Amino acid sequence: MTTPGLVTRSDRVDAWKVSASMPVHYEIQVCADAFGLGNTALLGHAGHRAERIRRFVVVDANVLALHGDRIRSYFEHHGVEYALHAVQADETVKSLETATEIVRALDAFGIDRRREPIVVIGGGVLMDIVGLVANLYRRGTPVVRVPTTLIGLVDAGVGVKTGVNFNNHKNRLGTYFASSLTLLDRSFLVTVDRRHIANGLAEILKMALIKDARLFDLLEEYGPRLLDEKFQGTTPALERAATEVVQRAIHGMLEELQPNLWETELERVVDYGHTFSPTVEMHALPALLHGEAVCVDMALTTVLGWRRGLVGTRQRDRILAVMRSLELPSWNALLEPGLLAEALADTVRHRDGQQRLPLPAGIGEAVFVNDVTEDELTVAVDDLRRLSSAQEAVRV
Amino acid sequence: MTTPGLVTRSDRVDAWKVSASMPVHYEIQVCADAFGLGNTALLGHAGHRAERIRRFVVVDANVLALHGDRIRSYFEHHGVEYALHAVQADETVKSLETATEIVRALDAFGIDRRREPIVVIGGGVLMDIVGLVANLYRRGTPVVRVPTTLIGLVDAGVGVKTGVNFNNHKNRLGTYFASSLTLLDRSFLVTVDRRHIANGLAEILKMALIKDARLFDLLEEYGPRLLDEKFQGTTPALERAATEVVQRAIHGMLEELQPNLWETELERVVDYGHTFSPTVEMHALPALLHGEAVCVDMALTTVLGWRRGLVGTRQRDRILAVMRSLELPSWNALLEPGLLAEALADTVRHRDGQQRLPLPAGIGEAVFVNDVTEDELTVAVDDLRRLSSAQEAVRV
Repeated sequence: MTTPGLVTRSDRVDAWKVSASMPVHYEIQVCADAFGLGNTALLGHAGHRAERIRRFVVVDANVLALHGDRIRSYFEHHGVEYALHAVQADETVKSLETATEIVRALDAFGIDRRREPIVVIGGGVLMDIVGLVANLYRRGTPVVRVPTTLIGLVDAGVGVKTGVNFNNHKNRLGTYFASSLTLLDRSFLVTVDRRHIANGLAEILKMALIKDARLFDLLEEYGPRLLDEKFQGTTPALERAATEVVQRAIHGMLEELQPNLWETELERVVDYGHTFSPTVEMHALPALLHGEAVCVDMALTTVLGWRRGLVGTRQRDRILAVMRSLELPSWNALLEPGLLAEALADTVRHRDGQQRLPLPAGIGEAVFVNDVTEDELTVAVDDLRRLSSAQEAVRV
Repeated sequence: MTTPGLVTRSDRVDAWKVSASMPVHYEIQVCADAFGLGNTALLGHAGHRAERIRRFVVVDANVLALHGDRIRSYFEHHGVEYALHAVQADETVKSLETATEIVRALDAFGIDRRREPIVVIGGGVLMDIVGLVANLYRRGTPVVRVPTTLIGLVDAGVGVKTGVNFNNHKNRLGTYFASSLTLLDRSFLVTVDRRHIANGLAEILKMALIKDARLFDLLEEYGPRLLDEKFQGTTPALERAATEVVQRAIHGMLEELQPNLWETELERVVDYGHTFSPTVEMHALPALLHGEAVCVDMALTTVLGWRRGLVGTRQRDRILAVMRSLELPSWNALLEPGLLAEALADTVRHRDGQQRLPLPAGIGEAVFVNDVTEDELTVAVDDLRRLSSAQEAVRV
């Protein structure tokens, strides 16, 4: 921590300026089996102290049902005193109430706040909630994340945002709080249902569209098969593809996040797909998953970009075709100009008075615009409705 | 913001270390009249934009009743569109529920999260709650604080801690979040009741005991009169004393806070009086104010220090006499070894497994100890009971 001297304002003795700098470090590791008995990452620094290791573990209820034996065996093998707090986590319970239930269980278990990290095993929603709990509990308790969904692996588990929904607004209450460690274990994906794999592919497609043409090519070529086999690497070619897709998505995300961890820079390419989707997602609950809402937003903004000449017609059609092949929606009945104007106004408030709206520029690049009009949105909605139903017709 | 390149761990391509550093700056200014029509500190940077200035203001209900005309006149004079959200704030409503009520009102008013700071006008409890709201709202909204109590001026308004009580634990949920600006205006103290002035004097006495013998002398000489006149500087000598007491208390606090804003260093002299008091305060609610509970803790630890030979008998008696002269309690019926052991255990959990208990060393210095025993506490409680009742008898 830097500790510059306290500054008294030079012009007066009764005013002070305080300056400090908070260092943040965190680590993300791919591993083959987070709960393999030889993996000590969840046990902390060996020999740190003689007492029994204790872990408070928040786990998604579905994950617990499917992987509970493996998780329990791990902690029991290592003689860890542990509590498993199960949460049936989805967007509809991403609330302060769910967070406070976790706090009550944590209080009952009791932890040393600096050396007994909370462990969270689950998807993006649960990691966001538990990240908030960890930030708030005694003003900061370490947390180790084991994402079990694809969106958790490539998105929620990589960044530092925490949050819960409030008052019908997505992530209205939240913080920036780095977990100390994230373990990325693709083996959990085998029990993730097909729709939730597609949900994660939407965030990967986002990274492809804004900054990684190679990743787009990989999704175009391997996406449907990776969806089929749930990133398990069932052939050497698919193993290579799964590995590269995940690595490129994470590396690209970290390249964007690290210089802007607290979002002081408001033009963020990773906000692509997140301009209209927060409002659409909250209005559609529980019909749309997060990645699905993001994909609808990306389809709309692809058409916006196409109308502005930023995206060619062939590129537009490739993008919409990849969305389709990944079984992601490019249309939702909530897309009507009134709701989109409301969504844009809320995003403008969030981005300090300007749209700062990332639009695709071809495939693999993005530009920011501040002048999208309601008329333009109306035209784009009509275009997208037509394109989506045409595509639907082709498919049928 | 420092932006070192993203580090891929040298030994593997599938692991990443993220490092970043969050800069924090905030300012504290003494001013004669925060709501004087010529004071533009609450209006932000003049000329920042042409639109109307908007402010969401959370104000203590008592302050609103007593100073509402002055506050409204200020905003109306400057053509500010504003909402006043009143909260009857005391320790018993320092809860998540109170925080979420404020969020609902904030959502209804709507603000641009970067340039329309929340304004909070009130005491330490309200500033702690609103600080938490500001941290959580859209993951961070600026806040300007106008403390209206003495404890707010010298303690809660100076630091970066936010929090609410939860599950019968004091500040169990909270964050570190710097307000952009604090305006210290002693004129509000004129309507603070005598007991709450004494409450603030307890935190000033803390600073005196651990690091500022001159401040102790000032309290010994002027404390009772400052309490009588509520720091209004009714004579030149009292104006000088009030000014110096407040400045020394704040400067000392900032010297301790700035190098350790996030409390990575767990041995904090400013934790003096805060080892047993959180538990005592929560059990005594609403009987004890925060500063009163801190004073009881300081009395107990003064006696602990005296038994260890760190504090002389004459020093001990001066300290207890100053507490008395400031109308602060040095004894509470909750002081019994069982509760104190529970309080110490909770503090040890909070301080990463060690007591790190600051004890006074004479007047104006502190040392840290890790070996306070239950037997020692039992003896100190008996001593303090005897000393307090003897002092009571002398007074009668």
